[in-house]
Amino acid sequence: MNYRFSARLGTFSSSAVREILKLTQKKSVISFAGGLPAEEHFPVAAVRNAFERVMAEGNKALQYGLTEGYLPLRESICRWMTRKGVSVTPDDMLLTTGSQQAIDLLTRIYIDPGDVILVERPTYLSALQVFRSYGASLISVKTDAEGMDLEDLAAKIKQYRPKMVYVIPTFSNPTGKAWSLDRRKGVLKLCRENDALILEDDPYGELKFGDAAVTYPSIFSLDQHPAGSCVVYTSTFSKTVAPALRTGWVMADPDIIRHMARAKQAADLHSSSLDQQTLYQLMEHFDLDAHISFVRKEYEKRMRQMADLLEQQQWPGVKWTEPKGGMFFWLELPAQIDTAELLKTAVDLGVAFVPGATFYAENPQHNTMRLNFTHTDFEGTITGMCRLSQALESVLVR
Amino acid sequence: MNYRFSARLGTFSSSAVREILKLTQKKSVISFAGGLPAEEHFPVAAVRNAFERVMAEGNKALQYGLTEGYLPLRESICRWMTRKGVSVTPDDMLLTTGSQQAIDLLTRIYIDPGDVILVERPTYLSALQVFRSYGASLISVKTDAEGMDLEDLAAKIKQYRPKMVYVIPTFSNPTGKAWSLDRRKGVLKLCRENDALILEDDPYGELKFGDAAVTYPSIFSLDQHPAGSCVVYTSTFSKTVAPALRTGWVMADPDIIRHMARAKQAADLHSSSLDQQTLYQLMEHFDLDAHISFVRKEYEKRMRQMADLLEQQQWPGVKWTEPKGGMFFWLELPAQIDTAELLKTAVDLGVAFVPGATFYAENPQHNTMRLNFTHTDFEGTITGMCRLSQALESVLVR
Repeated sequence: MNYRFSARLGTFSSSAVREILKLTQKKSVISFAGGLPAEEHFPVAAVRNAFERVMAEGNKALQYGLTEGYLPLRESICRWMTRKGVSVTPDDMLLTTGSQQAIDLLTRIYIDPGDVILVERPTYLSALQVFRSYGASLISVKTDAEGMDLEDLAAKIKQYRPKMVYVIPTFSNPTGKAWSLDRRKGVLKLCRENDALILEDDPYGELKFGDAAVTYPSIFSLDQHPAGSCVVYTSTFSKTVAPALRTGWVMADPDIIRHMARAKQAADLHSSSLDQQTLYQLMEHFDLDAHISFVRKEYEKRMRQMADLLEQQQWPGVKWTEPKGGMFFWLELPAQIDTAELLKTAVDLGVAFVPGATFYAENPQHNTMRLNFTHTDFEGTITGMCRLSQALESVLVR
Repeated sequence: MNYRFSARLGTFSSSAVREILKLTQKKSVISFAGGLPAEEHFPVAAVRNAFERVMAEGNKALQYGLTEGYLPLRESICRWMTRKGVSVTPDDMLLTTGSQQAIDLLTRIYIDPGDVILVERPTYLSALQVFRSYGASLISVKTDAEGMDLEDLAAKIKQYRPKMVYVIPTFSNPTGKAWSLDRRKGVLKLCRENDALILEDDPYGELKFGDAAVTYPSIFSLDQHPAGSCVVYTSTFSKTVAPALRTGWVMADPDIIRHMARAKQAADLHSSSLDQQTLYQLMEHFDLDAHISFVRKEYEKRMRQMADLLEQQQWPGVKWTEPKGGMFFWLELPAQIDTAELLKTAVDLGVAFVPGATFYAENPQHNTMRLNFTHTDFEGTITGMCRLSQALESVLVR
């Protein structure tokens, strides 16, 4: 049999994340690579309890669900969002298989081959993969510590007439940075004036460190919402509850939601309704906000530990910024170092990270790397950083 | 904001199934429409027990999983398939969000706009929707009680050089028919000789009625398998365990599986690993074969009841064939009747079905309808058929 694959196949390039997840299966490797939450902080008892409540509802719980997702969970999320100052109804919301699927479904209904999508530099690699698979043309916008550079954004909007601008403004993957309010407002204004749809990806927004009074309002919340909004917002329970329940949601203008639901019907009919029902019961009978508070503090401790260890190394020419939330440190090494090469040495020494090049839409910076600080425990982080230091010794000039 | 949707959007036409699922939410309507299994036969205790075993494994159960799916479940399915005479390994298998997702992922990696897919006449409407969304050109092959007409298939292969042939050979949706062995072999031979990939969709194969000695081997099992096979086979737990766990699987040449996994990584990273782990524990600690045996008998009773009721109506000019398995009766009414029109009357009278036109890739036959017999109980089926009879009275000429 001579297989005749589609032209699209070439866009699904060999995947760093998949190989990483395989690496982390080996017990001997300490992995700072995957964007994994800390298993020891999963609310196992609450999940178990929620599941029992679902099963107590009777056999109907195991039947097919709606494509849009389990209505009571959509209602719970709406109430939760309202407490955060964002007013939406279940008709403005679609439940997805993680926020990854929200990115895929929106791209499916919005992007034709050749359409331009503007992205941060660097940005989430699996979003790039989705955009490429639909034939989008990807252009990076200059990005600094405050967020997207507004001048460069304005110039590129003028030059490329993008259909979409993809951003992770709060504790970005991979850089961990949080955009300033001015940049959020500025990007919103430019996109609104030019009919460019903003896809705001917010998996990490709840994982905020430091002063509780400092807030990072979503771009969605700064726009009119949801009807006529130029922002499509997506988030997930993967980082606040647990990834195995594989549930994300997307909020947008109800027409966009309706179209995404139709695309989802073709894609998989609906996501696991057992997971959705379990999350509904969990939201109703468990103090999720208190749990998130607890997880924030634990993650901040881990971030602080890794920051201290990075400080202690005194690696010449290595730069990073302390993240204000999320899951990642982003390191910039001396220009001559290719971190993809370095990874081989590192894995031999028993430590893994993600080489930064995969996070660029174009002209990758090969001297960068992403380190996750949420998954590895205290002892492991010490050992892992020690191994990373050994790997770096071989390439750093002192 | 002026939204600029993709050209693809037009292919996600208004969806019968979604409207149907909404209809069935109204308690007053007896629905023969949705392809829903009987809730009262869901193995609730076994699911609960399996979930407890998963949670007893510890926190890691709630972590991210592999894109390919939970390895122990893939191994369990392989053992199960081996008992049915099909030898595959976990590398030849991908777990999906229902078999619907398998159809989507294969189309994504195999079909370019303009490629031809041959389908049965009629066939599963949500597969048609997926194919259309990727720009495939759909051509129907004549189909009779034995399966695809081999002469017509040969002619259309010659004329259209199709990349793919989509079939549901065992207890088809919507017609309920089972192909003869000769047709299975004939289609396989023609496709192999002409490099046309067969997508064999088999959600209903386990729901077999009548003589246990009569078997319907999958086309996949008749081919070399899996390496180099010209068949991609997909099935699901939705009809044998329960739909809410939303787990299907696909078996194929390992290269095809590898490419589908990459596409899945972009689509949703992975399906619910909590559901997959639960199904693994269920397969290991529950007699699934005995359960399927039980469900078969119950569904056969329901089929028999509906066959008797159909017989009693003596509707002039209405034809159907008794299904040998699966979930559906397919009715052909006198040529002048449009069942989409009839549905409005029927719903007013409190009964629903699926008008047949949506199941055709081209030149729909408007005088057809699909009736599900698995979901409604004994009393409900009597009442529903009585209401359907009332609806038909108004349009049938006696």
